[in-house]
Amino acid sequence: MEALDVATVSRAQLVDITAAVAALVGRLALRSGAVHVFVPHTTAGVTINENADPSVKSDLLMALEALIPPGLAFTHSEGNSDAHLRASLIGSSVTVPVRDGILQLGTWQGIYFAEFDGPRRRRVYVTALPGAAG
Amino acid sequence: MEALDVATVSRAQLVDITAAVAALVGRLALRSGAVHVFVPHTTAGVTINENADPSVKSDLLMALEALIPPGLAFTHSEGNSDAHLRASLIGSSVTVPVRDGILQLGTWQGIYFAEFDGPRRRRVYVTALPGAAG
Amino acid sequence: MEALDVATVSRAQLVDITAAVAALVGRLALRSGAVHVFVPHTTAGVTINENADPSVKSDLLMALEALIPPGLAFTHSEGNSDAHLRASLIGSSVTVPVRDGILQLGTWQGIYFAEFDGPRRRRVYVTALPGAAG
Repeated sequence: MEALDVATVSRAQLVDITAAVAALVGRLALRSGAVHVFVPHTTAGVTINENADPSVKSDLLMALEALIPPGLAFTHSEGNSDAHLRASLIGSSVTVPVRDGILQLGTWQGIYFAEFDGPRRRRVYVTALPGAAG
Repeated sequence: MEALDVATVSRAQLVDITAAVAALVGRLALRSGAVHVFVPHTTAGVTINENADPSVKSDLLMALEALIPPGLAFTHSEGNSDAHLRASLIGSSVTVPVRDGILQLGTWQGIYFAEFDGPRRRRVYVTALPGAAG
Repeated sequence: MEALDVATVSRAQLVDITAAVAALVGRLALRSGAVHVFVPHTTAGVTINENADPSVKSDLLMALEALIPPGLAFTHSEGNSDAHLRASLIGSSVTVPVRDGILQLGTWQGIYFAEFDGPRRRRVYVTALPGAAG
C-alpha cells in the first residue's frame, strides 16, 4: 500500500489524481490485476468521470449540491451532514483494471478525489491487487 | 482481463450482463476470490439489483431521472451532464465474490450495465482477482 | 470467503459491522491487500461513514429518505422500489485496504451494513484479496 497527499482549496472540489495513481501502479510493480484507490475520510470520496471538458466537474459538483433538498433538519453538531451524505453516495473507493502495468481507463475517464468539506489536507491509499498469473 | 460488448437501444437502459460475466469467470479460470466488472465510459455505469420483477428496472431508471431537480443550469456543452452525474452516483464498477468458480450473488441479484446516454455501443472489462490460497 | 449474519430491527437502519469484519480478516489470515465486504441482497447495501457521533447515522438515513421525491409512480408490486434505489445508490460492496493484518480505515471511519427494507435477517460475505508479495 502506498499513500498520496491531496490538498483542497474549496469546500467542494474534484481533484484529478489519475497521473499520481498511475505512477504508484509503477512503484508497486503491478503488471496485471487491479488497483484499489481508497479515501480514509468520511466527508470526501473518490469517483471516475470525464477528464476532458472541465465543465463536467463543475456541473457534477453543482448537481450534487442540488440533489439534497434544502431545509432538512440535520442534527449532527458539526453541520457537515450534507458532506457525509455525498461521501456515501459517491463512495470511498474505486478499483481500476491494470494490464501490462497500465491503468485500463476509458479514453475520457479520470480518477477524481472528491472533497465535500474542504479546504483540508487529505490522504488517499493505493493498493495493488494482482490478477491471476495467466 | 476480458472484455464484453454491450449495445443499448435507449437513452437510459439497464442491461443484464450476469450470464456473460459468469461465463468469463469460467474462461478466466477463477476458482476463488472476486471478479471485478468495470465500465470504461463516463455516461454509463454498472450496478447490482433485482433480476426477478422487470418493474424494478423501470422504477430504478424513473427514480434516477426524478432524483435530479429540473432546471439546473448545466454548462457542459454536450448536454449530458445529467448522465455524468448518474454514472458517478451508480459507480463505474462492481466486485462480486467467487467460490468454486461460481459468482456468489444473492438469489435475487443480477449485474446490470447501466446506460445513461444511449443508444451506444459500449464495453465492459472483467478482471479476475484471486483470493487467498486457503 | 466468510459470512456474517446481521439482524435489523427497523425499515431503515445502519449497523456497524467494523469489528466483525476486522475479526474475519484475522480468521482469513490476510496480512496485506484488501478485504471485500459484499451484501447479497437487493434492498440493502454497505457503506463507510463516521463512527463517532451517532447523529451522522440518523442524518444519513433521513437524507436518503428525503432524496427521493414523493409521489413517484412506482410500479413494482412489492412496494419497496425506493429501497432498491437506495441500495443501488449506496452500493452492494465496499473494499478496504489491509496492512499487517489490520484494516486501514481512517480514524473516524466505520463499515455500516445499510438496511433499507427491514426488519430482516441478512447476510454479508467477506473475501480476502491478497496484495502483491512485496
